[in-house]
Amino acid sequence: MSPGPRSPTTGECPVIDLRSDTVTRPNPAMRAAMADAEVGDDVYGEDPTVRRLEEAAAARFGRQAALYCPSGVMCNQLWLRVLAPGGTEAIVEDNAHVVNYEAGAGALLGHVQFRTVPGSRGVLDPEVVAAAIRPDVFPLTPTSLVCVEQTHNRRGGAVTPLETLDRLRRLTDEAGVALYLDGARVFNAAVAAGVDVADYAALVDGLSFCTSKALSAPVGSAMVGDADAIVEARRWRRRYGGGMRQAGVIAAASLVALEQMTDRLVEDHAHARLLADAVAEVYPEGLEAGTVETNIVCIENVDAAALVEALADRGVRAGALGPSTARLVTHPDVTEDDCRRAAAALKDALADVAR
Amino acid sequence: MSPGPRSPTTGECPVIDLRSDTVTRPNPAMRAAMADAEVGDDVYGEDPTVRRLEEAAAARFGRQAALYCPSGVMCNQLWLRVLAPGGTEAIVEDNAHVVNYEAGAGALLGHVQFRTVPGSRGVLDPEVVAAAIRPDVFPLTPTSLVCVEQTHNRRGGAVTPLETLDRLRRLTDEAGVALYLDGARVFNAAVAAGVDVADYAALVDGLSFCTSKALSAPVGSAMVGDADAIVEARRWRRRYGGGMRQAGVIAAASLVALEQMTDRLVEDHAHARLLADAVAEVYPEGLEAGTVETNIVCIENVDAAALVEALADRGVRAGALGPSTARLVTHPDVTEDDCRRAAAALKDALADVAR
Amino acid sequence: MSPGPRSPTTGECPVIDLRSDTVTRPNPAMRAAMADAEVGDDVYGEDPTVRRLEEAAAARFGRQAALYCPSGVMCNQLWLRVLAPGGTEAIVEDNAHVVNYEAGAGALLGHVQFRTVPGSRGVLDPEVVAAAIRPDVFPLTPTSLVCVEQTHNRRGGAVTPLETLDRLRRLTDEAGVALYLDGARVFNAAVAAGVDVADYAALVDGLSFCTSKALSAPVGSAMVGDADAIVEARRWRRRYGGGMRQAGVIAAASLVALEQMTDRLVEDHAHARLLADAVAEVYPEGLEAGTVETNIVCIENVDAAALVEALADRGVRAGALGPSTARLVTHPDVTEDDCRRAAAALKDALADVAR
Amino acid sequence: MSPGPRSPTTGECPVIDLRSDTVTRPNPAMRAAMADAEVGDDVYGEDPTVRRLEEAAAARFGRQAALYCPSGVMCNQLWLRVLAPGGTEAIVEDNAHVVNYEAGAGALLGHVQFRTVPGSRGVLDPEVVAAAIRPDVFPLTPTSLVCVEQTHNRRGGAVTPLETLDRLRRLTDEAGVALYLDGARVFNAAVAAGVDVADYAALVDGLSFCTSKALSAPVGSAMVGDADAIVEARRWRRRYGGGMRQAGVIAAASLVALEQMTDRLVEDHAHARLLADAVAEVYPEGLEAGTVETNIVCIENVDAAALVEALADRGVRAGALGPSTARLVTHPDVTEDDCRRAAAALKDALADVAR
Repeated sequence: MSPGPRSPTTGECPVIDLRSDTVTRPNPAMRAAMADAEVGDDVYGEDPTVRRLEEAAAARFGRQAALYCPSGVMCNQLWLRVLAPGGTEAIVEDNAHVVNYEAGAGALLGHVQFRTVPGSRGVLDPEVVAAAIRPDVFPLTPTSLVCVEQTHNRRGGAVTPLETLDRLRRLTDEAGVALYLDGARVFNAAVAAGVDVADYAALVDGLSFCTSKALSAPVGSAMVGDADAIVEARRWRRRYGGGMRQAGVIAAASLVALEQMTDRLVEDHAHARLLADAVAEVYPEGLEAGTVETNIVCIENVDAAALVEALADRGVRAGALGPSTARLVTHPDVTEDDCRRAAAALKDALADVAR
Repeated sequence: MSPGPRSPTTGECPVIDLRSDTVTRPNPAMRAAMADAEVGDDVYGEDPTVRRLEEAAAARFGRQAALYCPSGVMCNQLWLRVLAPGGTEAIVEDNAHVVNYEAGAGALLGHVQFRTVPGSRGVLDPEVVAAAIRPDVFPLTPTSLVCVEQTHNRRGGAVTPLETLDRLRRLTDEAGVALYLDGARVFNAAVAAGVDVADYAALVDGLSFCTSKALSAPVGSAMVGDADAIVEARRWRRRYGGGMRQAGVIAAASLVALEQMTDRLVEDHAHARLLADAVAEVYPEGLEAGTVETNIVCIENVDAAALVEALADRGVRAGALGPSTARLVTHPDVTEDDCRRAAAALKDALADVAR
Repeated sequence: MSPGPRSPTTGECPVIDLRSDTVTRPNPAMRAAMADAEVGDDVYGEDPTVRRLEEAAAARFGRQAALYCPSGVMCNQLWLRVLAPGGTEAIVEDNAHVVNYEAGAGALLGHVQFRTVPGSRGVLDPEVVAAAIRPDVFPLTPTSLVCVEQTHNRRGGAVTPLETLDRLRRLTDEAGVALYLDGARVFNAAVAAGVDVADYAALVDGLSFCTSKALSAPVGSAMVGDADAIVEARRWRRRYGGGMRQAGVIAAASLVALEQMTDRLVEDHAHARLLADAVAEVYPEGLEAGTVETNIVCIENVDAAALVEALADRGVRAGALGPSTARLVTHPDVTEDDCRRAAAALKDALADVAR
Repeated sequence: MSPGPRSPTTGECPVIDLRSDTVTRPNPAMRAAMADAEVGDDVYGEDPTVRRLEEAAAARFGRQAALYCPSGVMCNQLWLRVLAPGGTEAIVEDNAHVVNYEAGAGALLGHVQFRTVPGSRGVLDPEVVAAAIRPDVFPLTPTSLVCVEQTHNRRGGAVTPLETLDRLRRLTDEAGVALYLDGARVFNAAVAAGVDVADYAALVDGLSFCTSKALSAPVGSAMVGDADAIVEARRWRRRYGGGMRQAGVIAAASLVALEQMTDRLVEDHAHARLLADAVAEVYPEGLEAGTVETNIVCIENVDAAALVEALADRGVRAGALGPSTARLVTHPDVTEDDCRRAAAALKDALADVAR
C-alpha cells in the first residue's frame, strides 16, 4: 500500500495533502471487504454486493431505491436527465460544482438550461429562487428544477440549513418544480448540523452522495430517490456508460464507508477549525467568507498561487479556487497532528504572502 | 388589407395595440416591393433579392457578410452555434430574450451552458462579466461567449452605451472570448444614442437585427459578421430548417425597411415618452426602472394583469412581463394621436389599479 | 419579375432549368394574393392568412390541424422531435432526404438515432421494416418511428403505393411505433397514383407537404396531424426559430398553391415522360432504376458530371445525385415545348457522354 | 467468494452460465492485486496503478496512449465524440453493439448520425462502405467515421480479417474518414486469427478493449490511440461522469487480465466448438450463420425462448438475441467438463424444441 508522497523539498517528512478530501485512500477494512466481495454482472442486476450497497443507501436515506455510479459527476448528470427534461431550466447557485466543474455537460449532454443565481456562501436564498421560477407558458423557458449543493464545495463547505431546504421544498412544490440535493458531502453537513441525512432526503426529489471523498472509499457515488426515478436513472446510466460489471468489488468498500466512516467526520471538522483558527490569528481578512462549518477552509483575499506555493515549500499541499481564493480540506488520511503542523505552516506562509 | 381589430367593448373606435412592435404590418411600399421582387432558389444562393438584402445589411453594418433568416430566435440560436462550441459557457444577462423566451433552445439544440448574471436595466456590468469568465483549464467549464441585447426588451428598451460595449470588447479580447450583439432592436438603440449601427457592429464578433418589429417588414431577421462565420451560419441554418426558397418575396420588404424605416424611429421614441410622462404624472413609482430611452415603456410595481385588463377596457392593448410589470411598445402602426389617447387611458387605468 | 436566366453559351435562348422543381417562381395569382394578404403576428396566433392556410391544409388532408413552417427540412425535423423521443430510433430508407440532405440535424438537434435500411426505388419493404423494429427492453435502443418519403426524391420520384403504406401502418400499430410521411412531393404521388392525399394522411401519425417545389409558392411547407401533436410542434418550431411574424404575406401564396396548382401536376409528369422516352431511345441502361412515375427523371450508369456539363452546353441545366446518377425535374416553369427541346438535347448529350 | 448459483430445478449440480462472458468473476490473482494496489486520485492523474494499466495497454497495442473507463459503452461513446463531430455520420454495421445495445446514446449524447449498413456475419464489406461515404459538400451530411466491431457480438463472435480492416483503412484514408475498432473482444479475434492486437491497432484511429468479459477482470475497459486523441477523450470522460477516484483498486485487476488472461482464450474457443459440434450433429440448420470462430455460439432458426427454457431445465443458462436466435458464450468460469455437459444438454434440448 502506498505510504504517501514524500516532501519534494526535504525528502524526509511526508507531505500533508490538503488539496481535497478526494485524495483519501481505502482503509484496511475496505481492502478486506473488497478482497472478499461476492460479485456478479450488475448490468443484469445480479451483483449481490452492489445490491446490498444500494439497499443500505436507500435505507440510510429513508428512500425507496438507490443506484451505484462511478462518480459524483455522473450522479449529477443523471439526476439532471431524470428531473429536468431537455429544453427546461434548472436554477443553480452560481458557484455550484455542476456549473463550474462538469465541463458544460448539463447543456451538452443533458440539454438543460442553467439559470445561475447568487447564493450566500453557496446557500440559495428562497426568495431569489422564487423570483427566478418561470411558469410553463409558451414560449417562456419553463423552470423544472432547483439544485442545492450540500455542503458547498467552492464556498467553504457551507451547510444549507434544513429550514432553508424546507422553504425551498415548499416553494418548489407550489410551482410544480423538482428539487435536487447534490450531496457529495451530505454527511459532512449532517454531522455539522446535527441532522439525520434522511431528513434532508425527505425534502427532495433526488439526492446523490459520495463514498469517496471524506468517507475514504474508492470510486463510489450513488443516487437515492423514488423507485421509478431510479429505474429511469438506470436506463440513463447505461447511455452515459456507467453500467459496470462485477462492480461489487468496489461497492464493498462503499458499504464499509457508509457503515463506519460517517460519524468520525467530526474529527475532520475539528481539524479544519485548527486551520481556520490559524488564519484568524494572523490574517482574519482571509476568512471573510465566514465560519468554517465542516472540513473545507477557504482563504480569501490572498494571492492564491503564491500561498499554494508557500505552503508546498513547507510540506503542505493546498489548492487555488481562483486568483484570490485558496482552499484546504481535511480528511481521514491526515491526523490531528498533521493538521497542527499544517496550521503552523499556514501561519508562516500567510505571514509571507498575505501582506 | 386588415383595418386593425375593433375595440371589444364599443365596436367603434379601433383598438390601439401596444403589446409589442411585432404587431406591425408591411406598409404600401413594402407590398409593392414584394409584388415585383425578383426571386430564385436561395438554397442554391440564387435569389437575387435575398442577395441584395444581405449585401445591403453587410454594408449598413460595415461587416463582410450577412445571412437572411426567418426569425430573430433563429439568428440568436445560429450565432450561439457559431460562437459558442457545445460544452462551453455563454455569459448572458438574466433577463435576456435568449434566456427567457427561446424555450431552452440554447441548451437543447445549441448544447451551450448559460451563466446568467444580473444587469443594470439589462445592461451588463463589465466587472461582473470579467469576474464570471473562466479559463479553459480542465475540468472547468470554459467561457466562450458574452451576449448583449440591444435594446433590452424585458428591461424597458434600455440601451447599452457604446462605451460599455467597448469595455466588454476589450475584456473579452483579453480572455479570448467572443462577443455577440442580439440587436433585434439595434436601430432603436442607434437612433436613441446617436450612434451609427456600424459602430456597434465593429465591436462584436456577431450581430443580428430584425426588420420585423418597428421596421414594419414581415418575417425578416439577419445575421451580420465575418464572411467565414456567415458561411458556417449558412450550414447551421440548413440544419435548423431556415433555408427558404424564393425568399426574395419577403426579403424585398426587408430591403425597404432597411432603407426607409430606421430614421423614423425617433417618432416612436417620442410617442413612448408621451406614455412615460403619463405614468410619471400619476404613478411615478411605476417608472422605478428608469428613463424611457426608446420605444418600450415598462411599468413596474403594479398588478400587471389588472392594468392590462383596465387598459383593454379603455381600448388599449398592453402586455404583462410578470406579475408586477406591464409593458407598452410604440411602433409605426400607431400615430402620435393614438399615443395621446393611450396616455390618457393609461392615466385613467393607473388611477384605478395602482393604488 | 425575373425573366429567367439566359444561356451562358449563346446569350440568346433561355436556359431550361431542370435541376429541381425548387427553382419555380410564384405565378401572378400568387403575387396578387401576397400583395393583398391580411396579416398579423403569427407568434400570437393572430395572422388570419396563416390561419386560413393551416385550416385549408388540415381540411385537404382530412386531419385536425396544420402548422406552417419556413421549410420542408424544418417540418421533417419537428416531426422527428414530436414522434421520436431523444434516445430512440427511427427507421429510414437509406436514400431519404432526412438522411442525406439535412446535414445530420436528426441526431445533432433531434437526438434521434437513424436505422437506415435499403428500399426498392426508395420504397420501404414492410418485411424489412418489421425485422428492424426493436422492442423497448432495456438496454436495447427502442424503435419509435418509421419514415416514408413520398415521392422519393433521390430514387426517381418513386411513389410508395397506398397498399404499402397501409401494411406499414398495420405493422407499426402492432409494434406501438409511429409512422411519418415526408410528403414534400405528396401531391405528385397522389396525382400519379390516382389517390386522394387524405388517404395517405389517414394512415400516418404525421405528414408534411411543400407548397414550394412544383406547386410554385415561395417559402412554404406545412405539418399536418392531430391537434395535440401540432400544439407540441408549435412549441418546437419556436425553438428551431421557425416562428415568423406577419407570415400571411407568404402563406397567401401557399393558399393559391393548394387551391390551384395540384391538379396540373399531370402536365409535369407527362413532360418527364418525354425526357424518359428520350433516354429509353438512346441509352436504355440509363433507366435501370425503373419507370418514371412523376416529375423526376434519374439517369443512371452515366458519368453524371460529364452529362450535366454536356447538357449545360446545350442550354439545359440538370443535377448530379452522385458520380453515376444525373437528375432532371420538370415543373410549372418549363413548358411542353421546353421539355421537347430538353429531350432532344438529352439524346444528343447522352450520345456524347454515355458510351 | 460466491460459489456460483445452484440449479433451480435440482438444487444439486451448479448451473452452467453461458449467457455471456460478462458473468466472469475476478480470479484469486486479481483479488490479490486489488488488495495490494497503490492508489491515488486519478482525476488529478495521480493513481499509479491506473497509470501503469494505461501504459501497459498502450504498449500492448503499440499506440501512444490509453485511458481507463468504467465500461465498454463509455469507450464507444467517447470515441464517437472524439472521432465523429456532431452533425456528421458514422457508418456502422447494422447489428453492431453501438446500434443495438447503447440505448440511442450515439445520437442522444454524441449527436452523431448513424448510417447502418448490412455486413456478412457482422463483417463490413469495404465496397458497401465505400459506396456509403458522402463527401463534405453542403448540404450533404458528411461522413466522418467507420466503425468495426471485433469480434462481432450479435453475429456469432465473427472475426473481421486483418486484410478487410486494411482495405477499410485504405478507403477511409482516401476519403478523409476516421476508422474505429470496437474491440470489446479484440483478444478473442487476435487469438483466433493468429494476429497481434497491435496489428489491428496500427490500422485504426481509435480502439477500445475490455478486461471484463473473457479476461475476467471487474469493471475495466480502455481506449487506445494517439496521445492527443486520448487527451481529448479524458475531457469527454469527465463530462460523461467516467472520472473515477482511487480507481487503481480495480485497474489492478485489469493489469492482471492483460498480463495473464489473453493467451488462454484458445481454451474458450475450443469449448465453444464443443457446443457447435453438438448443434451440427443434431440440428445443422441452426448453424446457418457459419463456423464458430471464437467463444460465441449463435443458434439460429429456432424458437429462442423455448430453447433457452429447455436449457434452463437442464442446468444451462443461455440467452436469446431475438425470436429465432439463441446464444451461448464460453468463458474462464466454465471448464471443459462444464462445456461437455452443456453440449449434451444442448443436443437434448434441441431435440425437444427444434423440430
